[in-house]
Amino acid sequence: MLNFDFYNPTQILFGKGRIADLNKVVPADARVLVLYGGGSIKSNGVFAEVMAALAGRTVKEFPGIEPNPSYETLMRAVEIVREEKLDFLLAVGGGSVIDGTKFVAAAANFEGEPWAILETRGRNIKQALPFGTILTLPATGSEMNNGSVITRKSLKAKMAFSSQLVFPKFSILDPAKTFTLPVRQIGNGVVDAYAHIMEQYLTYPVNAPVQDRFAEGLLLTLIEEGPKALANPEDYDVRANIMWCATLALNGLIGAGVPQDWATHMVGHELTALYGLDHAQTLAIVLPGMLRVRKESKRAKLLQYAERIWNITAGTEDARIDEAIKRTQDFFEQMGVKTRLSDYKLGSGNIDEVLQQLESHRMVALGEQRDVTLDVSRKVLELSV
Amino acid sequence: MLNFDFYNPTQILFGKGRIADLNKVVPADARVLVLYGGGSIKSNGVFAEVMAALAGRTVKEFPGIEPNPSYETLMRAVEIVREEKLDFLLAVGGGSVIDGTKFVAAAANFEGEPWAILETRGRNIKQALPFGTILTLPATGSEMNNGSVITRKSLKAKMAFSSQLVFPKFSILDPAKTFTLPVRQIGNGVVDAYAHIMEQYLTYPVNAPVQDRFAEGLLLTLIEEGPKALANPEDYDVRANIMWCATLALNGLIGAGVPQDWATHMVGHELTALYGLDHAQTLAIVLPGMLRVRKESKRAKLLQYAERIWNITAGTEDARIDEAIKRTQDFFEQMGVKTRLSDYKLGSGNIDEVLQQLESHRMVALGEQRDVTLDVSRKVLELSV
Repeated sequence: MLNFDFYNPTQILFGKGRIADLNKVVPADARVLVLYGGGSIKSNGVFAEVMAALAGRTVKEFPGIEPNPSYETLMRAVEIVREEKLDFLLAVGGGSVIDGTKFVAAAANFEGEPWAILETRGRNIKQALPFGTILTLPATGSEMNNGSVITRKSLKAKMAFSSQLVFPKFSILDPAKTFTLPVRQIGNGVVDAYAHIMEQYLTYPVNAPVQDRFAEGLLLTLIEEGPKALANPEDYDVRANIMWCATLALNGLIGAGVPQDWATHMVGHELTALYGLDHAQTLAIVLPGMLRVRKESKRAKLLQYAERIWNITAGTEDARIDEAIKRTQDFFEQMGVKTRLSDYKLGSGNIDEVLQQLESHRMVALGEQRDVTLDVSRKVLELSV
Repeated sequence: MLNFDFYNPTQILFGKGRIADLNKVVPADARVLVLYGGGSIKSNGVFAEVMAALAGRTVKEFPGIEPNPSYETLMRAVEIVREEKLDFLLAVGGGSVIDGTKFVAAAANFEGEPWAILETRGRNIKQALPFGTILTLPATGSEMNNGSVITRKSLKAKMAFSSQLVFPKFSILDPAKTFTLPVRQIGNGVVDAYAHIMEQYLTYPVNAPVQDRFAEGLLLTLIEEGPKALANPEDYDVRANIMWCATLALNGLIGAGVPQDWATHMVGHELTALYGLDHAQTLAIVLPGMLRVRKESKRAKLLQYAERIWNITAGTEDARIDEAIKRTQDFFEQMGVKTRLSDYKLGSGNIDEVLQQLESHRMVALGEQRDVTLDVSRKVLELSV
């Protein structure tokens, strides 16, 4: 096992009816900005519950945080926070709303141009407004971590930052609030969580059996529960299990003490920034090819993955690995997320452009061994056409 | 899954050489009391490392916290804290030292007689001194939770308290510091962690597959690694895996959203309070009988446990369950912890006394179904002779 630090002070309030507990976890004298996305929370009743629980506090709204939240949009929220002297943020939505809220929290009292937060990956954050979240879309794990990914449209740049100062104070997870999610978001969420786990699990062995088994437990649960969520959208237990999986997939726990990859995410970010694909779509496209191209350096873990997750024990090593990767890809398709560039009207003709973006973002030595060069990324993309 | 709250702000610093990082996590102007046990930290070099890392701070020592830390001893530490106006505590040791330090932290500025902290199980704690820990004995999980068990010798009472205010600020876990543990403490630690997991896992199903698989991952790892620690005491990876298992066994995670039992612990506490048995010895005695007597209400989970942990799939349900319980008991014996009252010169003649103590501590409706009456506890003890 590798040395590690683990710290995660976010309070989780999980279960039916927990939005009412907002009134215990948001200070009574808080001046609150409620941030959200496209407005589905107004039609499904979540917004009304939130406002009822915040009764007695000054509350302003900031709607319209888009998928892949943009610097341009978020800076308008920063202005409102400053003008109205608000002191507490409440994100109501999925990973994009929460990531965006983390940026607003860090930018509100930032000295200078807040884009510098992204340029330093968060190292220059000195303070942040306190904030909580109400999760309505299980996927990114942002509700229980201190990372955020922000897009600057004018630069076609999608960049990440993190800081100990942007852990949510609390996150409320009510699985029943996910019943009305569109099919596409259910599928995307499961694929996103699955890919997060793979980035931390599918590297090379360091004798860390607990981390391995926790990761495997999450993968197995997503494989079992994901299709059930598509078939029976109002099964509470299914939604609860997926929701808790997605949170635990990226709260720092399963990655503590083990190598981590993240090359799939870095290549995927460029596909979103250039062509607007959903984040999960990019992961579904890139991950299978990434595993195929890097089969040698990941061999031991791929064999473990084949056996423990897909119960594949017969055949040559190569055959078992190939079958496990195929099953992974099939699972993404089963969840309704297409896995080839051509499914999104992209192809070989786009690869050079993606590689140029990777190079301009200095993403030239990715992965747990820093051996995912631009040439390797090219091979991955060629396999994903 | 049941509704739950999860909150755990303890920072973990895990790995080789981490004691040197004390100087980053203890405030530079802190007035520190270092609490420890029998003094092995002076012979194995840990104490010298701690003092070096604390250089520049006012540091006082409080040695002599005994296994099953006593109110009588700890109140002497409280006096020193008050007299010397100390403001930061550092526990260096195992669960007893850490539990004791939690009590000192809560008692230092407590108004009135601090025994009231135990009488209210911690509900009356209004403030606590900040403290950190350096774990030298993986077992109880106290390094990453907010619970504590204190013994008052004069009353033969062993009682628990908890409070959000007594989470350690940080815990340093260096597996190499456990190389010199006596065999008895290695075995006790593994059995203690194993029993903690069983108290949260072996109840009844609530459709919580993640929690089940995490618990199973920890159990399987303890079964694999425990005997290796006895055979090769200086295998770093083995010690690291056991250490992380023991912490995760009782940091709130695997018990979040599922029913919990704890009847074995409550009966075990009386055996320690009356006869001075090691905590883990009492668990090894009580747990097998507890599972046998409550076979019907625990049937579904016992079958799952038999299959997933012990790979037992053949035979009648009853035969599979009996075999799984026998393997559990055999594992405790393999770890050097005897599992019968008679191994400790106790027997049927002691049972009435234990039941009287349980009754006087109102432990008359224990377990996840509150159906472990004194009659049930009697049957358990009779099976454990």
